Amino acid sequence: MSKIDKIHGLYYNFNVISRKYINELSNFIGQNISVCGFVNTVRNQGGIKFILLRDNTGFIQCVVLKSNTEAFELAGNLFNESVVRITGLLKEEKQAPGGFEILAEEIEVLSLSDAELPIPVNQDKIIDDVEVSKRMDYRWLDLRDPEKLKIFRVWTSLEEGFRKVYRDLNFIQIYTPSLVGTATEGGSEVFEVKYFDRKAYLAQSPQFYKQMAMASGFDRVFISNPMFRAEPSYTTRHLTEFTMWDFEVSFIDSHHDVMDIEEKLLISGITQINNDLNLGLEVPTAPFPRIPFEEAKKILKSRAINSDKENDFSPEEEREIAKYVKETFNSDFVFITDYYFSGRPFYTKKHEENPKLSKSFDLLYKGIEITSGAQREHRADVLEKQISEKGLNPEDFKDYIEFFKYGCPPHGGVGIGPGRIVMQILNLNSVKESSFLPRDVKRLNP
Amino acid sequence: MSKIDKIHGLYYNFNVISRKYINELSNFIGQNISVCGFVNTVRNQGGIKFILLRDNTGFIQCVVLKSNTEAFELAGNLFNESVVRITGLLKEEKQAPGGFEILAEEIEVLSLSDAELPIPVNQDKIIDDVEVSKRMDYRWLDLRDPEKLKIFRVWTSLEEGFRKVYRDLNFIQIYTPSLVGTATEGGSEVFEVKYFDRKAYLAQSPQFYKQMAMASGFDRVFISNPMFRAEPSYTTRHLTEFTMWDFEVSFIDSHHDVMDIEEKLLISGITQINNDLNLGLEVPTAPFPRIPFEEAKKILKSRAINSDKENDFSPEEEREIAKYVKETFNSDFVFITDYYFSGRPFYTKKHEENPKLSKSFDLLYKGIEITSGAQREHRADVLEKQISEKGLNPEDFKDYIEFFKYGCPPHGGVGIGPGRIVMQILNLNSVKESSFLPRDVKRLNP
Repeated sequence: MSKIDKIHGLYYNFNVISRKYINELSNFIGQNISVCGFVNTVRNQGGIKFILLRDNTGFIQCVVLKSNTEAFELAGNLFNESVVRITGLLKEEKQAPGGFEILAEEIEVLSLSDAELPIPVNQDKIIDDVEVSKRMDYRWLDLRDPEKLKIFRVWTSLEEGFRKVYRDLNFIQIYTPSLVGTATEGGSEVFEVKYFDRKAYLAQSPQFYKQMAMASGFDRVFISNPMFRAEPSYTTRHLTEFTMWDFEVSFIDSHHDVMDIEEKLLISGITQINNDLNLGLEVPTAPFPRIPFEEAKKILKSRAINSDKENDFSPEEEREIAKYVKETFNSDFVFITDYYFSGRPFYTKKHEENPKLSKSFDLLYKGIEITSGAQREHRADVLEKQISEKGLNPEDFKDYIEFFKYGCPPHGGVGIGPGRIVMQILNLNSVKESSFLPRDVKRLNP
Repeated sequence: MSKIDKIHGLYYNFNVISRKYINELSNFIGQNISVCGFVNTVRNQGGIKFILLRDNTGFIQCVVLKSNTEAFELAGNLFNESVVRITGLLKEEKQAPGGFEILAEEIEVLSLSDAELPIPVNQDKIIDDVEVSKRMDYRWLDLRDPEKLKIFRVWTSLEEGFRKVYRDLNFIQIYTPSLVGTATEGGSEVFEVKYFDRKAYLAQSPQFYKQMAMASGFDRVFISNPMFRAEPSYTTRHLTEFTMWDFEVSFIDSHHDVMDIEEKLLISGITQINNDLNLGLEVPTAPFPRIPFEEAKKILKSRAINSDKENDFSPEEEREIAKYVKETFNSDFVFITDYYFSGRPFYTKKHEENPKLSKSFDLLYKGIEITSGAQREHRADVLEKQISEKGLNPEDFKDYIEFFKYGCPPHGGVGIGPGRIVMQILNLNSVKESSFLPRDVKRLNP
């Protein structure tokens, strides 16, 4: 290093890495320190000004005395939400939030905010009154609310917990393409892309590719990628672009193997959130209740809930099942298993003993579907038959069927919607709130 | 659990989770076991057949005796690459590869391969003779080569190593959108999407969004997302879709803070690969050499290498710098710093003392650029000036400039190409080889 310094005269430090966050300050009481953050509020009290400084870990009160002329004048001209570095003595002060405060010696303005903010910042109740679409227009200000930052900490920890299990179970991560050559899986709900002199489409799921990885002998793969759905939906759980977490596993006996793994993921994810963020979430225990679809319909009927959905549940039915499962098993999670083959995609494996049923499942969490999974049909000849049975043309799936002709292990997997899991963990109103920058029919910005 | 079983009669096991991989078998010598995998070869030796079985961890020899009539006949009819489960006694055998073999009792055919394979599988030298485009057409067979599986294990471990550092340094992961409303950053190199009754574009980078996260006070974020470039490139290092790893950090003093963090990521990533895969890669030490751009051009001149690229390097120059750095510092990595502002994007921060230069850098690894990074200009008024200076219209960037009007910390970050890192670690010919399913001007399948 000294050699490099001598030749090029470059400085080298770890300033940013050793920066002090507000939630670490209790270790530095009695010392002269610097903290960086946003000016949450400035309060005037005659000969003293109080700056409440906010960083991504908390709040600290900074006291500016009149005797410090320069800083005092500066503090008077600071608009809320300006970004500053404040240096001074950190001392205990029982009156202050958190029990200590900084006696400001120097204030450095790193970025001055405009006087007028387009939406209120970090004042929960007022923000909730602002129309959602206006909040989303100013999403970067909306997200300054520490409660909203927490959404993304939860998401980060959840993913970390998932990855621990993937790692323990020898999974490989793959990145599957978003640009696909044909729109076979979906038809009209696919976005079309101008691709040089032809057309491409945006992937709705990594389904075919993760199955291809099984045919390649990758054995266990996981994926975290954006997926795209061109459905003109206006619900609280649909977006046109969303993050999907997939995994696929070889050499399973049935879809129950897949559920076993998903349980491990969720338990690890929620445990990780508790460890990192101290949220005190209830950690589920395995196995989660598993109720066959036909059984679930009977239970609903016995509770006087009916719907015209033969192959699926209405939102009302989903809520009622959640209630039943909570009462009966004290569980927020329930696998609904063995849906009718007629209600699932052609590549789902049928039950040998009852081919009306498929080896499929959904996972409901507090009454909302967060996962769809199944064992897949891995035999090329049976696949072709199932394609025809669905009224589709096997010719359209020729390339896909090829994957299964040169040896392919039995396999299955799931697609998981982390945006929905985070929404349910934090009891948010919509997946728009759990998405950093949601995209829907109307919204492509910021 | 027993409750659930009683009600719904569901079975529950961890069969797939406790499955034995070939590289774990030494723990089970003398036991009756099952292994699953692909039939690599079947060798006939009179009264004995040898099946060499392959899973994603290695190879095991399975012996089938003539006395086991059923299995013996079955083994005779097995085409290579079929998928089987073989059960039998695992015993030591010095002649066998690995030092033990399975005396097959039962062979279960899970998936029979066609007799003819469209490309040779798992026979390195022959595969390398097959035209790349044909290999890519049959990518799922191409990837059955254990050396190719290793590419994705390296990638997975590299990411794991990066994430450890992100975690230690309190980073938050965000998922930024691929669908964007305007094509401001890039112009003609952007893919256009039919988006209901209007147009959308595919993101070329998460640049604006990660800066937005800084304006939101997220402080430190990382991103792992696909990015899209509609350039008609035919090089070994360009794809139309590729995975990009980005991070962005607030409250930096200069671009050197960003380099400090990137060094930690790479050291951790390469260490993780060594730990997981025992590849014995040389782990770099921090700091990596940092050579200002002007200095690098002088060095090249002194070595009689010239190019007409005033603001950048030609591939020949990059290779020569790599040579120089290897000779002088024994390093495979080198940061080239302080490029001319004229050669960098408008949002790059200029040097206060010499505004011709920018606080930017590229990272070269064995002579190939794997990263572009910089401190960003975080002051709205200066940004506007820099946009005009580049001959662009500030009006087109109105929404972006808004991010900086209500307080924004000084910040910087990088975009990293993991496909290129993996290519260089394993000395592959092209990023196509390090991508699971590469996409280029001509290729949208499989």
